[in-house]
Amino acid sequence: MEIPKSDFSEWYNSIIKDAELCDIRYDLKGFVVFRPWAVMTMNRMFTIYEKELESKGHVPALFPALIPESYLMKESEHVEGFVPEVFWITAAGNNPLEERYAMRPTSETAMYSMYSLWIHGLKDLPLKIYQRCQVWRHETKATKPFIRSREFYWIEAHDAFATEKEAEAQVKEDMGITEKILHQQFCVPFFFFKRPQWDKFAGAVDTYGADALMPDRKALQLPSTHMLGQNFAKPFNIKYMDDNEKEQYVWQTCYGPAISRIYAAVIAVHGDDKGLVLPFDIAPVQIVIVPIVKKETKEKVMKKCRELEKKLSEKYVVKLDEGEDTPGAKYNYWEMKGVPIRLEIGLRDIEKNSVMLFRRDTKKKEPVAVEKLEGTIEKLREEIRKNLKEKADKWFMEQNDKADSMEEFEKKVETRGFIRIPFCTDQMEGKPCAEIIRDKVHANIRGSLYGEKEKPRGKKCIACGKPAKIYLYASRQY
Amino acid sequence: MEIPKSDFSEWYNSIIKDAELCDIRYDLKGFVVFRPWAVMTMNRMFTIYEKELESKGHVPALFPALIPESYLMKESEHVEGFVPEVFWITAAGNNPLEERYAMRPTSETAMYSMYSLWIHGLKDLPLKIYQRCQVWRHETKATKPFIRSREFYWIEAHDAFATEKEAEAQVKEDMGITEKILHQQFCVPFFFFKRPQWDKFAGAVDTYGADALMPDRKALQLPSTHMLGQNFAKPFNIKYMDDNEKEQYVWQTCYGPAISRIYAAVIAVHGDDKGLVLPFDIAPVQIVIVPIVKKETKEKVMKKCRELEKKLSEKYVVKLDEGEDTPGAKYNYWEMKGVPIRLEIGLRDIEKNSVMLFRRDTKKKEPVAVEKLEGTIEKLREEIRKNLKEKADKWFMEQNDKADSMEEFEKKVETRGFIRIPFCTDQMEGKPCAEIIRDKVHANIRGSLYGEKEKPRGKKCIACGKPAKIYLYASRQY
Repeated sequence: MEIPKSDFSEWYNSIIKDAELCDIRYDLKGFVVFRPWAVMTMNRMFTIYEKELESKGHVPALFPALIPESYLMKESEHVEGFVPEVFWITAAGNNPLEERYAMRPTSETAMYSMYSLWIHGLKDLPLKIYQRCQVWRHETKATKPFIRSREFYWIEAHDAFATEKEAEAQVKEDMGITEKILHQQFCVPFFFFKRPQWDKFAGAVDTYGADALMPDRKALQLPSTHMLGQNFAKPFNIKYMDDNEKEQYVWQTCYGPAISRIYAAVIAVHGDDKGLVLPFDIAPVQIVIVPIVKKETKEKVMKKCRELEKKLSEKYVVKLDEGEDTPGAKYNYWEMKGVPIRLEIGLRDIEKNSVMLFRRDTKKKEPVAVEKLEGTIEKLREEIRKNLKEKADKWFMEQNDKADSMEEFEKKVETRGFIRIPFCTDQMEGKPCAEIIRDKVHANIRGSLYGEKEKPRGKKCIACGKPAKIYLYASRQY
Repeated sequence: MEIPKSDFSEWYNSIIKDAELCDIRYDLKGFVVFRPWAVMTMNRMFTIYEKELESKGHVPALFPALIPESYLMKESEHVEGFVPEVFWITAAGNNPLEERYAMRPTSETAMYSMYSLWIHGLKDLPLKIYQRCQVWRHETKATKPFIRSREFYWIEAHDAFATEKEAEAQVKEDMGITEKILHQQFCVPFFFFKRPQWDKFAGAVDTYGADALMPDRKALQLPSTHMLGQNFAKPFNIKYMDDNEKEQYVWQTCYGPAISRIYAAVIAVHGDDKGLVLPFDIAPVQIVIVPIVKKETKEKVMKKCRELEKKLSEKYVVKLDEGEDTPGAKYNYWEMKGVPIRLEIGLRDIEKNSVMLFRRDTKKKEPVAVEKLEGTIEKLREEIRKNLKEKADKWFMEQNDKADSMEEFEKKVETRGFIRIPFCTDQMEGKPCAEIIRDKVHANIRGSLYGEKEKPRGKKCIACGKPAKIYLYASRQY
């Protein structure tokens, strides 16, 4: 890495290329190729999410990637939100199609058309289905690998319930999953914001987004969970017969962790001047072994390295680097790739019956006795997680600030993260004030902090000057 | 199940619906929804294939689902083979696109455009990349769930080598993977046929297909592996610098296990009059526990059931059916769903410290002492696999036949499987003879049996009457 992380935008472009995460040379604007080192991590992230969703009663299904126009058009707000970004298929072979098909920008309309056929009575509820897939949106904003592209990979979970209360509990469950995986396992801190009414998911009653901060202090929107109420149940006619033999519309929620974008957050939050720093559990290689050999010691050293490789491979993903490069070049390479633990083994180590262990996250090196190696690695697995999380949490919390006037906000937004401001309202009437902030300060309202009870007293909306009813948070954004 | 398997076509449609594998009511011709019970099995099949491919040095990547027209048009045979089936994207939002994009019908052209950027020298070879994805083809033939649809799920592995010899070895390795997984693990028998020149993959030098037999004795084409030679390397300009500093084109192979289609074979080959019969390792539920309770014994029985559920869940996927239905209804339901092992537990079993164990594949029931249960199940896992494989192999081998004249072939093709016939040639000049067989007998040439050395002596091609140079196999097909 030649570019320091302090120059974040350039650092990001450079690590994407140097660590071979993604190739932007595919000849289709806004589309990229996800390369093996990235996909291996993303696959681990997918598996962690899928397991968690299944443990909460979700089952997987696969719906067509193409959506008939008639399905897509059923919910009017949804249409307005997504149709401007839809890719349309209009021909097959040499013939035009009779009806054009949309490539799914999201799957509500594909799935709920079937839900109305599958749900009849209370025995069919709750229905909790997730799908692992990609979606396509003709983004007009600038694209950036993993952060925003016209094709991205996600899981979308779509749940239907008999009661509003169960749907509300599901929203909380989804947020719990985000906290457990994204924060506790991937060590990416974020705030949950309830989006203002003008910025919720197209068709939702309420949207709760998890917003992380990139190193340049711009917000990155991560998994959102949406309370859909009966907004889709009505146009899609999803009803069940209740105990009194009366037809009732279901209550719905949906949740969409975009794995490719979460991967961007992992790269950006943990990386450093030397390259990637990957959490142990999602690293494609968890331990790299670098032999330190001279011609005359090669046989003995390689034998020991292979022994350790075999043993550690029972539990971890281990790579023994037998390449021709110098040890120093190998160190740099695997540090850049973000491998959490490196073992260096030379003749002197073997004589002392120890190995040199390097931790990518702290960049510290120390000798470890061979008989203590497995125990040490098992302890490090948790220590690395804890260290990455604490470091990220600390930085994240330091970036947050408050501002009570437009002037103060304008100044702080250049150098700070999420900034709390008094605001007139998060209902639709507040939209013009959000537009002032967007146009004047190039910042965006993220919403109200989930769980925050405090109300502004005697303060004024920083945009319109009317009495402020609520605290909202604002920041620059990706 | 009300329809016996002897009426295969109706049985298949009925099991798809009754076991909730797939919904054909999605309003887009040729597209279906894959329902959870099917996707859970398909996901296990994907994982088995991915692990095996990775153990052979493949790494995963993800290429865009959309292919620029300029990429698709580079290899002329490939164009001819696939373009008539391509779905075209011509608009985004309300605007026409400048260049139309193809939805990938297969990924050679997307991937090899990048391979030419990634491969420079011997250090970049071999390159072995696989992608788990779906592809889209505007099939004009009749579609049938899992067997043929306009969207299907597969893994495609695309490898590049410095030498022809390595590429040939890869073709054999791919065939080994097919044998290991499809035959040994999924218990689906097949023949490897080297396709005649007129029926190889568009752009390949040679194609080796694995053909299974459905119960109606029609062939079902399963994973194919293709020797591409330098047919793509040249138009895509994939070259490396050899040791003499001379530029050389790479040699390529590709391999495409279509998971959704393999799933069709698993359903069809193992199913019976009661429904699905799933191999233990890919069953979404491996063991179902059915409590036999009266009001007064319920507490005691359920306690034991939960105990066993907990214990067995450490190793297997276990479902305790606590539903309201009668035990008999539960038996029928889980038999229809294909769950390999059922445990029935009532008060009398508890008193004898045993459970009643039912095997779906043999339909045999016997009491097993609780302390021997885990050992018994572990043994059964292998026994079930062996039994399914032997049964399927036996039936498969019995279906094959020979015919030396068109009359004999025409008669046998109605009731037999793969029929060996003397044929003029499997080179392009033999195509008119294959067309006679197709048009007259509605049967298809599958190719020459891989590994068969025997040549026809003094026999004549059953279509043109010229001296036969080769034995080919023919059958009806899906």
